[in-house]
Amino acid sequence: MALRRHNLAVVLDFLRATEGASRARVAVETGLNKATVSSLVTELIDRGLIEEAESVRGGIGRPGQILRLDGGRLCGLGAEISVDYLALMALAVNGDVLAETRLPLDAVAMGARGVLDVLGNMLVSALAELAGAGVHVAGLTVAVPGLVKVEPGVIAVAPNLGWRDIAVIDEIRARLGRAEFPIRVDNEANLAASACYAEVLAGAHPDVTDIVSLSGGAGVGGGVVSDGRLLRGGRGFGGEVGHIPIGPADRVCGCGRTGCWESVVGLDSLFDAAAAPDDPVRDRSLDLVARLDSLTARAQAGDPRTLTALAEVGTWLGRGAAVLINILNPDVLVLGGYFAPVSPWLLPLVDRELDEHVMAPETGGCQVVVSGLGFAAAVRGGAQTSLEAVFADPTLIDLGPARELARKGATS
Amino acid sequence: MALRRHNLAVVLDFLRATEGASRARVAVETGLNKATVSSLVTELIDRGLIEEAESVRGGIGRPGQILRLDGGRLCGLGAEISVDYLALMALAVNGDVLAETRLPLDAVAMGARGVLDVLGNMLVSALAELAGAGVHVAGLTVAVPGLVKVEPGVIAVAPNLGWRDIAVIDEIRARLGRAEFPIRVDNEANLAASACYAEVLAGAHPDVTDIVSLSGGAGVGGGVVSDGRLLRGGRGFGGEVGHIPIGPADRVCGCGRTGCWESVVGLDSLFDAAAAPDDPVRDRSLDLVARLDSLTARAQAGDPRTLTALAEVGTWLGRGAAVLINILNPDVLVLGGYFAPVSPWLLPLVDRELDEHVMAPETGGCQVVVSGLGFAAAVRGGAQTSLEAVFADPTLIDLGPARELARKGATS
Repeated sequence: MALRRHNLAVVLDFLRATEGASRARVAVETGLNKATVSSLVTELIDRGLIEEAESVRGGIGRPGQILRLDGGRLCGLGAEISVDYLALMALAVNGDVLAETRLPLDAVAMGARGVLDVLGNMLVSALAELAGAGVHVAGLTVAVPGLVKVEPGVIAVAPNLGWRDIAVIDEIRARLGRAEFPIRVDNEANLAASACYAEVLAGAHPDVTDIVSLSGGAGVGGGVVSDGRLLRGGRGFGGEVGHIPIGPADRVCGCGRTGCWESVVGLDSLFDAAAAPDDPVRDRSLDLVARLDSLTARAQAGDPRTLTALAEVGTWLGRGAAVLINILNPDVLVLGGYFAPVSPWLLPLVDRELDEHVMAPETGGCQVVVSGLGFAAAVRGGAQTSLEAVFADPTLIDLGPARELARKGATS
Repeated sequence: MALRRHNLAVVLDFLRATEGASRARVAVETGLNKATVSSLVTELIDRGLIEEAESVRGGIGRPGQILRLDGGRLCGLGAEISVDYLALMALAVNGDVLAETRLPLDAVAMGARGVLDVLGNMLVSALAELAGAGVHVAGLTVAVPGLVKVEPGVIAVAPNLGWRDIAVIDEIRARLGRAEFPIRVDNEANLAASACYAEVLAGAHPDVTDIVSLSGGAGVGGGVVSDGRLLRGGRGFGGEVGHIPIGPADRVCGCGRTGCWESVVGLDSLFDAAAAPDDPVRDRSLDLVARLDSLTARAQAGDPRTLTALAEVGTWLGRGAAVLINILNPDVLVLGGYFAPVSPWLLPLVDRELDEHVMAPETGGCQVVVSGLGFAAAVRGGAQTSLEAVFADPTLIDLGPARELARKGATS
């Protein structure tokens, strides 16, 4: 059984790495014999993990049956609790986004119970919709901006939320009634780093093994991939980069200390510097994306106050990133969260500071890239993480006979 | 052949992990059959990697033959180029120190060519001595305080030495004539971290996977082990911790920048603060160990200036270590180099700063330990690294028939 489980995972992994392949090609590339592949494929179809389609590509001879990851019977769920919003995402096995929700709110003002109530309601309606569409849920992974004890699923401390010792998994289970899927909780920056690493590998840097991802928000979330693996540290608290004390001593941070990096690169410091107190761009009850659009428009129009504020953030962003690059020597530094939409104004200053402060020649080979995942990196990382367990062990999922698809596969 | 090579490594690894074991126990614990074990053991003895000894332990029945790592036919060589000294160490396969040399000098004043000439002479006489004693050399690994391109074996830049683009391996080969063993070069802090990690595993923390090791010297060398593996980063430049800009803006660092961490925790800052300019304790031509002994004696006698200087270093050491702990969440922080002998005065301040600046509860579970390897951590790490290739592939070494030992093994 262990061998069969392993072989199911091998075939599923191979189909993930390709755009689609015939049974014959699966057999050739995995080294498994054709009869075994055929049996494994039937089981993966029955489990709702792969599907069969006519090849639409031109070529000689009759069109072959192409196997590819399933797009609609199973999903991984991600949720994100942020200071400014709650988010949900459902990703199909093939990576298609099946559902996506984003609800702006002021999490600090609402408190933990209020936020978890809203999240519970969002989850209940999303689950009902997915069930109505015949989509099974493989698991839920919740991203939170704080130090997480992954094993019991507890937020130890989330300074920007003002939360401490919140048993997130228990709280969510209590609000969902009988949820039969596993629920996990993890640091948002770790999940964002996983999603950004997948994005980097799928993009221009397929061979990269070491990245640092920095996500701009109320604070700055850091995630590290070292030698192809998420760096968690001994107790899973790794990647806590926001409080490197390199800023001015008169800047007070949300954590109560002074001079923390995020006190000069977080959203508040940007908006404080860019606009007067009564400027609507600083109104936290408005949607952050809209506020950033306004700011971007002002920068494009050459507004001096906005440009000065962005230059200040870019300078500090580069100076802190240099610390991380010196310690970790990543191949790629990924800028995400709010850093992404304003990156045209940040990047020249980031580059200047890296040149100045990175010890290794040519900044140690590090390339700075901007994530295209926007504020959805963490929630996407959560959804991907929920699916990873299935990729590792496809026998975790059994959707039942799924007769229509199976019959279609058998008669073709 | 690949399978036999693998099995040779398995048996050698097993004997490394134990104090010594009989053929029968090797067979039981490795799962290999007795005939195979017997053949593998004979080959490992012939290759000079293990030896056979009478069991000296009490017990019932006749004493068995105990196999253990060889103590004297093969060694790994480590060398270290430091600002204050050159060092050599030869480690036997069983970890015994077969030779150790340490030569104080002023590397900056001598320049690269002069230093490499002296190192070449040290190596030539060490090799002659080892050859005279019948000890074969498996390889040489040279530790340097700078950014190293491991693959061609070049120092890209070593700020504290003032070296740039020095092809260390070529330079050493040119001075050794025909050296038949592989020569490697690596960052001293990486090699020290490897040695400290081995020390931690062999000591009170056998299950630790994540450490940060900090070695006090002219600068502060950092090495990171993450998930059981040395963190090198994409181009091998990782662990460059000395220039985190957390110090006072008026402190000028050897790198030309201001406020670098090592400008407040390096040896110079300690001696500058602890003693008047004409105090012999500051004379760099004297042996560093003796100078530190003087300083320690003054601290023990309660000399206020010395204690203030040590408190200052301890405070900054803790503050920088907190940055690393927040990012990396190590299980253990190892203090080595000059930090070790003065650790009784540093530790209370380090602990205070970690409590204050580490975000995770209970400093993320990180324990601070003091290395017992002294200034020999890097050179020991080099010697260990030279042996690692042999542990990975025992067929790299063939010392010839080694008749006496083989016969002893065969007749016993």
